[in-house]
Amino acid sequence: MKALVLEKQHDLKIRDIDLPLVLGPDDVRIRIHTVGVCGSDVHYYTHGRIGHFIVDQPMVLGHEAAGTVIEVGSNVTHLAKGDRVCMEPGIPNPRSKASRLGLYNVDPSVVFWATPPVHGCLTPEVVHPAAFAYKLPDHVSFAEGALVEPFAIGMQAAVKARIKPGDVAVVIGAGTIGMMTALAALAGGASQVLVSDLMVEKLAIAQRYEGITAVNVREQSLQDKVAEATGGWGADVVFEASGSARAYGDALAAVCPGGALVLVGMPVEPVLFDVVAAQAKEIRIETVFRYANVYERAVNLIASGKVDLKPLISATFPFERGVEAFERAASAQPGDVKVQITFGDA
Amino acid sequence: MKALVLEKQHDLKIRDIDLPLVLGPDDVRIRIHTVGVCGSDVHYYTHGRIGHFIVDQPMVLGHEAAGTVIEVGSNVTHLAKGDRVCMEPGIPNPRSKASRLGLYNVDPSVVFWATPPVHGCLTPEVVHPAAFAYKLPDHVSFAEGALVEPFAIGMQAAVKARIKPGDVAVVIGAGTIGMMTALAALAGGASQVLVSDLMVEKLAIAQRYEGITAVNVREQSLQDKVAEATGGWGADVVFEASGSARAYGDALAAVCPGGALVLVGMPVEPVLFDVVAAQAKEIRIETVFRYANVYERAVNLIASGKVDLKPLISATFPFERGVEAFERAASAQPGDVKVQITFGDA
Amino acid sequence: MKALVLEKQHDLKIRDIDLPLVLGPDDVRIRIHTVGVCGSDVHYYTHGRIGHFIVDQPMVLGHEAAGTVIEVGSNVTHLAKGDRVCMEPGIPNPRSKASRLGLYNVDPSVVFWATPPVHGCLTPEVVHPAAFAYKLPDHVSFAEGALVEPFAIGMQAAVKARIKPGDVAVVIGAGTIGMMTALAALAGGASQVLVSDLMVEKLAIAQRYEGITAVNVREQSLQDKVAEATGGWGADVVFEASGSARAYGDALAAVCPGGALVLVGMPVEPVLFDVVAAQAKEIRIETVFRYANVYERAVNLIASGKVDLKPLISATFPFERGVEAFERAASAQPGDVKVQITFGDA
Amino acid sequence: MKALVLEKQHDLKIRDIDLPLVLGPDDVRIRIHTVGVCGSDVHYYTHGRIGHFIVDQPMVLGHEAAGTVIEVGSNVTHLAKGDRVCMEPGIPNPRSKASRLGLYNVDPSVVFWATPPVHGCLTPEVVHPAAFAYKLPDHVSFAEGALVEPFAIGMQAAVKARIKPGDVAVVIGAGTIGMMTALAALAGGASQVLVSDLMVEKLAIAQRYEGITAVNVREQSLQDKVAEATGGWGADVVFEASGSARAYGDALAAVCPGGALVLVGMPVEPVLFDVVAAQAKEIRIETVFRYANVYERAVNLIASGKVDLKPLISATFPFERGVEAFERAASAQPGDVKVQITFGDA
Repeated sequence: MKALVLEKQHDLKIRDIDLPLVLGPDDVRIRIHTVGVCGSDVHYYTHGRIGHFIVDQPMVLGHEAAGTVIEVGSNVTHLAKGDRVCMEPGIPNPRSKASRLGLYNVDPSVVFWATPPVHGCLTPEVVHPAAFAYKLPDHVSFAEGALVEPFAIGMQAAVKARIKPGDVAVVIGAGTIGMMTALAALAGGASQVLVSDLMVEKLAIAQRYEGITAVNVREQSLQDKVAEATGGWGADVVFEASGSARAYGDALAAVCPGGALVLVGMPVEPVLFDVVAAQAKEIRIETVFRYANVYERAVNLIASGKVDLKPLISATFPFERGVEAFERAASAQPGDVKVQITFGDA
Repeated sequence: MKALVLEKQHDLKIRDIDLPLVLGPDDVRIRIHTVGVCGSDVHYYTHGRIGHFIVDQPMVLGHEAAGTVIEVGSNVTHLAKGDRVCMEPGIPNPRSKASRLGLYNVDPSVVFWATPPVHGCLTPEVVHPAAFAYKLPDHVSFAEGALVEPFAIGMQAAVKARIKPGDVAVVIGAGTIGMMTALAALAGGASQVLVSDLMVEKLAIAQRYEGITAVNVREQSLQDKVAEATGGWGADVVFEASGSARAYGDALAAVCPGGALVLVGMPVEPVLFDVVAAQAKEIRIETVFRYANVYERAVNLIASGKVDLKPLISATFPFERGVEAFERAASAQPGDVKVQITFGDA
Repeated sequence: MKALVLEKQHDLKIRDIDLPLVLGPDDVRIRIHTVGVCGSDVHYYTHGRIGHFIVDQPMVLGHEAAGTVIEVGSNVTHLAKGDRVCMEPGIPNPRSKASRLGLYNVDPSVVFWATPPVHGCLTPEVVHPAAFAYKLPDHVSFAEGALVEPFAIGMQAAVKARIKPGDVAVVIGAGTIGMMTALAALAGGASQVLVSDLMVEKLAIAQRYEGITAVNVREQSLQDKVAEATGGWGADVVFEASGSARAYGDALAAVCPGGALVLVGMPVEPVLFDVVAAQAKEIRIETVFRYANVYERAVNLIASGKVDLKPLISATFPFERGVEAFERAASAQPGDVKVQITFGDA
Repeated sequence: MKALVLEKQHDLKIRDIDLPLVLGPDDVRIRIHTVGVCGSDVHYYTHGRIGHFIVDQPMVLGHEAAGTVIEVGSNVTHLAKGDRVCMEPGIPNPRSKASRLGLYNVDPSVVFWATPPVHGCLTPEVVHPAAFAYKLPDHVSFAEGALVEPFAIGMQAAVKARIKPGDVAVVIGAGTIGMMTALAALAGGASQVLVSDLMVEKLAIAQRYEGITAVNVREQSLQDKVAEATGGWGADVVFEASGSARAYGDALAAVCPGGALVLVGMPVEPVLFDVVAAQAKEIRIETVFRYANVYERAVNLIASGKVDLKPLISATFPFERGVEAFERAASAQPGDVKVQITFGDA
């Protein structure tokens, strides 16, 4: 089987590789159509590791995928050959305590695509548990289907925020995850979302969406903009999606008494956190780790037209030019949100 | 002071009446601009009572109002003369246990406009606690401001439902409250809302909104439509907004395992309720009584454009023709959602 | 294998029967020590059916069990041979949507002991998924272990009630499930629990527990007792555990504004429910269907001494006298809470 | 009026002082019986300030009080002359947005006893809003009544934790607030509470309570003890009650996947917080600021016997020796939990 293989840091190529493709009774076989390039894929390519996850043997990259079911296992009833689907890349042990609790994303035994030593999906065909493949309506494209994975992180953040209808929300950071979070918050009940960043290209993309107010924190105080939008009360929900240690002060200043701070961004180091400032407003803080039970609701929102992810696709490369796709993604052009790789007709 | 006074059942007129207009330190004086006619106003007019609330002395009608602040009490800081506002018609004792809990709507000592023996607001000028008057942005009209009150009931229902982003919701009943609930649910995070009714005129209004699917239950099974929309799983939230005893079977059939049923409609008599059917899905049932803490979020959603209430205004009458407005409302034309009365420039 | 087999209505005997005892990789083999007799077991014995579940072929009874692990499957790590365990009798499909959500109790594909056509556990040896077997600490007896199943229903009710520390709770009905619910509510944070019933023998058992106030509703008004205990405000949580249609009026009168009503009892017919009375207090209603994710916390509370179930064991019969045990249970002596059957040293 | 007046740092005396004692219609007049000495009182005494709250004019100390109603305002109905009561020391603006939301503790306009420039209650008589005075049952002593204030902080922490029945909880820090939190968690549904500290005297007090396991972190790893108590899963709830920056690592190691971390202790400086470690378990973090709506439930638990605060009273001084009481409290003897001052028969 051909695949986009990361041999080791900086060494990425398309080549043949042996992959397990046995179909179990609860599995489906999927012909891959589109795969998005995630920051983590790029990080493995450029650094050869993320934290203690080290690429010490060749690994297929890619975990944001959509494709077509071409074979179904004997127990599978909710999917059929020909169904167009997107897939959750993390597979838990369904019998674990975390899974029984409905928190399968925090099951320590999760196996996740393109996380060493597990191969990803940048290959024409995969076998996947049917329970973690979700049907796409006809009018949702494969490109949108492959965006469900990053959007699911924003959805998880919006679900955990427990947004109430009409809340005012803030998203700190207009990168891919910040945008996904802002769109999820907006579709999820917020009346408006203020998105802050330092880069005008990113803010320009945010500003295109009705309901989003872009705040350039080089020029404006986020706290002032929030005060203006809320009569001085503060934002009901603040999403930290930048991963920057400096964002925490802004976040605490922006949130309202009794409000929620949702930590989506992953700072490289521990951050200095002003506990007393958080207590003075008695805020709730939620943390986000991937997602659980949000794919169907994510597809619902895309299918309904309430969320339009298409403007976030910056470039699409055919699989044969997959290495080029990674070079584009690694170049981190400020106006890029998502680069995708396509296998053509699935 | 002139006012629209219900003398007794069927006897409504505009006449002078003595009303208390002393401004306390925490109050504002408001020149009324627009007042909506509520089903309860009409019911007092046509029946002289609602349950044990009996009109046994002349009472000014009206509780859905917007206007302009013309004087502020000495303690008031968040409003100024000239501010355009909408008002919560129910005033609790702020020191009661219910108020301390944030549940001021269920404070037994609430005083509510146009609920005997309390006068309503169909009069050119009222004095109101500033804490229960909410500023309208410039681009929100008085007509929309006067719709915040009925919309607040839908908002309360949507808040209590705890909608998660992307939920599929059902609203049984496409009357005024059903429509308000459907729009609140949609803006509040639902990916789609199925609204069921028997009357084509009402369904036609619902169908105009993107995201709402009108279901004529004379012709289609609600349960089938829900199954189709949810892959057989059921709706995450079902709002009962018809007040019909027969709706309860449909509601239990439509809701998903672990889902929520929100009781907004008020049946005249106790209903037969299949407890075991509810248990088999282990659903949560929420009940709605007016609203608390939703006016600001309601205004936010209207101001943001996420909720458009303007198509729900069916007719507007000048105050001088207020009795005519009540006759129109009492005639219950199936295509009417809301009749309003205006005092002209406020 | 010997088992207590219900041949058909009224025809119960101990005899040999073929049972599937193949150990899969995720299973454990358990030597049964104690099995409680549940009202549902008795009902199958006396009526041959419960609703649409009909005993139309011989079925082993029993689903409240504790025993000793005598063999473990190859994937099992959290249990070892010799561990003393209690078991959840309902086994869901771990890949179903309900299971993924953590709501495995409402998975339509659940297979439940002694629910036609599934055999129960009144037999010396069973094979069970290890994920649904829970280790008992040394000082928790098998008899207590076999009580975890009915206690789990009370625990589910207490969890769904979302008791806040210091709540005042009411339990209507002092039968087995009422007692289990009262003890779970008390251990789960209630400052006191008022338990109402008509039968003095049942109330006498309730009254023995510190923190429980028994209310004989033949002699006293429940509403008055609740008003007295709460300064007229009402109970924070009311559990309906009688299954009686007449209890619903009492429940609505007893609950406080904004409080919770938890429906545990299963009325035979739909009940007349006063929706407007529920709305006037804006209560939340939760329904209970068996349990999910409460066994470990149930064992924790028993092991800690916070919950003492031992006084609820009314009689114990050896397996050989199992039919006699059912006759005792079917005689419904008012002072009986739980009859158990034991296989002796496990 | 005589009072215990802090003139300035280190200068504390009993002397006459003018205090406002006008009774409004919603107030009660209370003869003070017992007042506890809080760490904040002591801190004002020893440092003359807490953060930006500076004692720049003479201030009466004390905010943990119980006494007897001796006069009631004209609107007061729930209290009568002779009632024994404890009081919430913080009085919000009942019309503020925070109050309307039920979050009166985070109302920026709260006026709080013995917080500059507001006088405290170490004086024989006070006037207080009746809504914030709570009746004590006959069998609850004034000494216990004066402990409701610090216990309320533990209650707030336990409420915000959303403990589920049978949870395993950890409290880091066995000081006064740690002990109050542990007792609230235990009464509030935890099956067991592990309390960690470095000081044997404090741990000895904790260990006296059934259900509490004292962990001396000089000798034992908290993480190991938690793993042992929870089969390696982690604690459902961890309360940080030490205010020590070093506790945060322990807290993150102790909490289970999907668990809750409740921040009660107030670190002097911002702490280094490992966001990614929190995300990897997707924990929820709650912060605590004083309390709202917990006094009644606190009194309920004390009155029921579920919580016994009496062992926490280390010494009692008559008002005349009030300065001595402060010296004792300031000496921070490790075995002391609470020093109280009494006015004798109230």
